[in-house]
Amino acid sequence: MTTTRHNSIHIPVGDRSIAGTLVGPNSLMPGVMLVHGWDGSQEQYIARAHEIAALGCICLTFDLRGHAQDRAARDAVTREDNLADMLAAYDVLVGHPSVDGSAVAVVGSSYGGYLAAILSTLRPVRWLGLRVPALYKDEDWLVPKRALSREELVAYRNSVVAPASNRALSAAAQFEGDVLLVESEFDTMVPHPVIKNYLDAFQKAHSMTYRVIKGADHALSQKAWSQSYTNVLVNWVCEMVKGAKEEAEAARSRKAAAREKSGAPKVLHSASGKVLASGADSPAIA
Amino acid sequence: MTTTRHNSIHIPVGDRSIAGTLVGPNSLMPGVMLVHGWDGSQEQYIARAHEIAALGCICLTFDLRGHAQDRAARDAVTREDNLADMLAAYDVLVGHPSVDGSAVAVVGSSYGGYLAAILSTLRPVRWLGLRVPALYKDEDWLVPKRALSREELVAYRNSVVAPASNRALSAAAQFEGDVLLVESEFDTMVPHPVIKNYLDAFQKAHSMTYRVIKGADHALSQKAWSQSYTNVLVNWVCEMVKGAKEEAEAARSRKAAAREKSGAPKVLHSASGKVLASGADSPAIA
Repeated sequence: MTTTRHNSIHIPVGDRSIAGTLVGPNSLMPGVMLVHGWDGSQEQYIARAHEIAALGCICLTFDLRGHAQDRAARDAVTREDNLADMLAAYDVLVGHPSVDGSAVAVVGSSYGGYLAAILSTLRPVRWLGLRVPALYKDEDWLVPKRALSREELVAYRNSVVAPASNRALSAAAQFEGDVLLVESEFDTMVPHPVIKNYLDAFQKAHSMTYRVIKGADHALSQKAWSQSYTNVLVNWVCEMVKGAKEEAEAARSRKAAAREKSGAPKVLHSASGKVLASGADSPAIA
Repeated sequence: MTTTRHNSIHIPVGDRSIAGTLVGPNSLMPGVMLVHGWDGSQEQYIARAHEIAALGCICLTFDLRGHAQDRAARDAVTREDNLADMLAAYDVLVGHPSVDGSAVAVVGSSYGGYLAAILSTLRPVRWLGLRVPALYKDEDWLVPKRALSREELVAYRNSVVAPASNRALSAAAQFEGDVLLVESEFDTMVPHPVIKNYLDAFQKAHSMTYRVIKGADHALSQKAWSQSYTNVLVNWVCEMVKGAKEEAEAARSRKAAAREKSGAPKVLHSASGKVLASGADSPAIA
């Protein structure tokens, strides 16, 4: 029989609230957050979000501030601003009543991948998917991203960077979950040395899935390249989610076995027993 | 393959918000609201809520104001107040991202049953479950429920009441969904004439499931009586939900067939096609 779970809630009524309890099937799903790159938008991840949702996940993709309808703010936006966007989006995803907060994937492209790596130090992230993750010097964190020197960036991205000297790479060095790292073979924005820096940093990762999309540019400007990334991403999430579900199942049957043994009721919550025991369903005066 | 659905959301960040899209499996569930009677509490429906949730429903039970932790307000509470509580609870339930707003059951005992009938005129209710629904004169609607004359009430509940003359009975007369009506054989609070008035009023109901719990008092004060009600309620919800799921399945396969025919993509949302067509996954400058 399906197990169930309940949460206590407060129901706002006018200027006050009443106490309530939501009860549903115990069917938490992994949450997957998908983050576009600089000058991108959530549109780039909508189709992929649907493919991943079809695996039994709740997905969230969104427009970083300074992008899409908010493009007017583009020149003023800092990494600090967009990291705040990521934290807010993460909290909305994990707040979804069907999302299992212990099974969250954060997937990001380029600038979104860089921010995703940093996010993993600020929130629980089990799975980290980075496509051509960008890299920036920690300094000028509060300077508008657009104002960063392109030349410095190119030089920095062609050098070997020690994890300790970079916020995103030290996040990678601390990360203990599963990692997908996707490189474009002919990427001039995020050249191989950047990918190598990330690869070398992920020393504690539980697993590393590293893929190179042959012939592809940074933007995956040909449909075939974009489709290859979709396949790599969906396969990786599928593998991760399958593993997580098997774990959860095993845990559930262990619990069930324990309940059998202790002879406790099948319904998970003791409230139940209490209610039926008390029996009274109504008042002295109706 | 599982179909998926998406909703556009706004993610609050500090004093602003960013646009996002939540994508999940297309697995909406019926919503079931369970309302206790006068001097009762949500505790009386928690165990039943778990049994119903195990059928694949999202359940909500709650404490009407003037009850449980709010007992201090008991003597001041009016039907208007508690109806406002029901509306607020209904809106929370239907606002749950997994609840199918076209498949909502409202179940109430005694005073909660009376209010549930009235609620069905103010919100879409597909299934109405009334256990020993109480009956009150429309007049004094704004008078504290506790202050209503007990003697008048007894007389009123032993008389034949025309639907047109009573707000709850006229709600019953208008109701076109499926009805469960449960009577207690030896009920001095809500005697048979009240149940008869409701039965006679439900002329337009799509189906009527009328059950009498043998030997039971109003409060179902013996565990066996309480358990009988639980069985009747769970069986009824199971039958209703099964029917609804079969309908939904049929509708889905019709849609799928239509898509096949039109050769449209499997993923439900055109956004998808757009994205992969555009191909570009990244900006001019990362």
